[in-house]
Amino acid sequence: MPAEHERLTVVGVGLIGGSIALAARRTGLWGEVVGVARSQASLRRAEASAVCNRMTTDLAEAAGGASLVVVCTPVGVIAPTLLQAAPACPPGALLTDAGSTKAGVVAAVESELSKLEAPPAFVGSHPLAGDHRTGPEHAREDLLTGRRVVITPTPQSLPAAVDRVSAFWRALGADVVQMAPAEHDTAVARTSHVPHVLAAALAQATPGSTLPLTGAGWQDTTRVAAGDPALWRDILLANREEVLAGLGPLLAVVDDYRQALSEGDGDRILQLLQQGKQQRDAVGD
Amino acid sequence: MPAEHERLTVVGVGLIGGSIALAARRTGLWGEVVGVARSQASLRRAEASAVCNRMTTDLAEAAGGASLVVVCTPVGVIAPTLLQAAPACPPGALLTDAGSTKAGVVAAVESELSKLEAPPAFVGSHPLAGDHRTGPEHAREDLLTGRRVVITPTPQSLPAAVDRVSAFWRALGADVVQMAPAEHDTAVARTSHVPHVLAAALAQATPGSTLPLTGAGWQDTTRVAAGDPALWRDILLANREEVLAGLGPLLAVVDDYRQALSEGDGDRILQLLQQGKQQRDAVGD
Repeated sequence: MPAEHERLTVVGVGLIGGSIALAARRTGLWGEVVGVARSQASLRRAEASAVCNRMTTDLAEAAGGASLVVVCTPVGVIAPTLLQAAPACPPGALLTDAGSTKAGVVAAVESELSKLEAPPAFVGSHPLAGDHRTGPEHAREDLLTGRRVVITPTPQSLPAAVDRVSAFWRALGADVVQMAPAEHDTAVARTSHVPHVLAAALAQATPGSTLPLTGAGWQDTTRVAAGDPALWRDILLANREEVLAGLGPLLAVVDDYRQALSEGDGDRILQLLQQGKQQRDAVGD
Repeated sequence: MPAEHERLTVVGVGLIGGSIALAARRTGLWGEVVGVARSQASLRRAEASAVCNRMTTDLAEAAGGASLVVVCTPVGVIAPTLLQAAPACPPGALLTDAGSTKAGVVAAVESELSKLEAPPAFVGSHPLAGDHRTGPEHAREDLLTGRRVVITPTPQSLPAAVDRVSAFWRALGADVVQMAPAEHDTAVARTSHVPHVLAAALAQATPGSTLPLTGAGWQDTTRVAAGDPALWRDILLANREEVLAGLGPLLAVVDDYRQALSEGDGDRILQLLQQGKQQRDAVGD
């Protein structure tokens, strides 16, 4: 049986890009999965992990002949990378990405693509999967299995393109939800970016002399602080207004704790802890 | 070979008490391990988990004939429980506990014990092991294996008692470190209690509508918020001065992030994230 699609091109073959490539190959739906690396060093690292059928540093070559290009680079370079790939794509090609913030990328890409004569279609995506470990050597074909992917179409998006990008992620085992780009950014500021700031601040503020007394609780609470600082700088910068807005309600609750602790108000402390537990229990492990 | 010690009495047979009982029985050093429950319901729950040789609700009976009494109740009732057990203990008995805060408990117990004619020896302990799951049904004989137990002797402690309590925890597989009670409380405010407040506040402050977008990062960062609210109310109240003091430096780092985000200062954000990662990496998984 011939593959349904010709070529999937994954640009940026790290943990997410590598896992997408592995999962796509498993589906048998793709003739080939081509990975694009920025440097020879990244190329060799991805080749060593054997996540793609082949690797190249030539984005235009890899995009030429691609049915779908997925850009999985750090957030800061997603838009320029998409716009560099677009003119090389064959007619009918579809572009998407795996960035953690969407409003800026989607606006920049849609605005520039509209200036091309026959631009490829574009719909932004954000797979809610990841790890504090990075790199293609940690890629897993099941990283997206059962995970949520937010796709962020706009009024400019072609319905057929929205359907195709949804089908792509579903074929990799993910659940797909649609949100407007700005709505997505507001939500993930609360569920991901504010938690990252807190975890990193907590890790930093813990005195070095007390680290031998840390246990599983501290380890869990600070785990994401081990993530790549440059990656997270880009994410926090790209969504800084929403992160700042999201820190406000969090700090208000911390202030509730401070006041209750200052007053030795056990009933109030219990009530606060119960509210936190209720929300945490609603999510589960 | 006869057991080296006659009776270990564990008061409060939940996750920690149950795990201590299981680990002590595995050593073969104890003739019997007797568990004390506050209520018939707790007694039946501990019996169902079969962690002790036998269970009772009669503290005085269980303490009579005990070589060692370990009180694993919630922090708020540790001191009264120890003081209730003390007069029933035979000569040469040793008391300790498993409380998460030490200064208040140790001061209260030492002061009251000194009024008895021939009081049992007492040295405070804090096993740095636990879980957001509670109850004897989650007890494990290896919960303390390789974990740290802080013991908090004072100038009033008998050196022989310090040695005995150290040997007890080491026999259960734990590493033992000594700290003054106040020094312990200052440290665990930073490594455990402040993280708990943060995790609970974060869980509470996350809008319910965004919970479907939470991923592994949010789950890790908030995991401890699923802990028992009444237990944590007691811990936070018992150590509230140190928790308030520990929140200060943490909030100062969060403010550094806010300022860097407001100014769009990527270099500063990167520097902060690198500091957090360095501390987190120093601890490991």
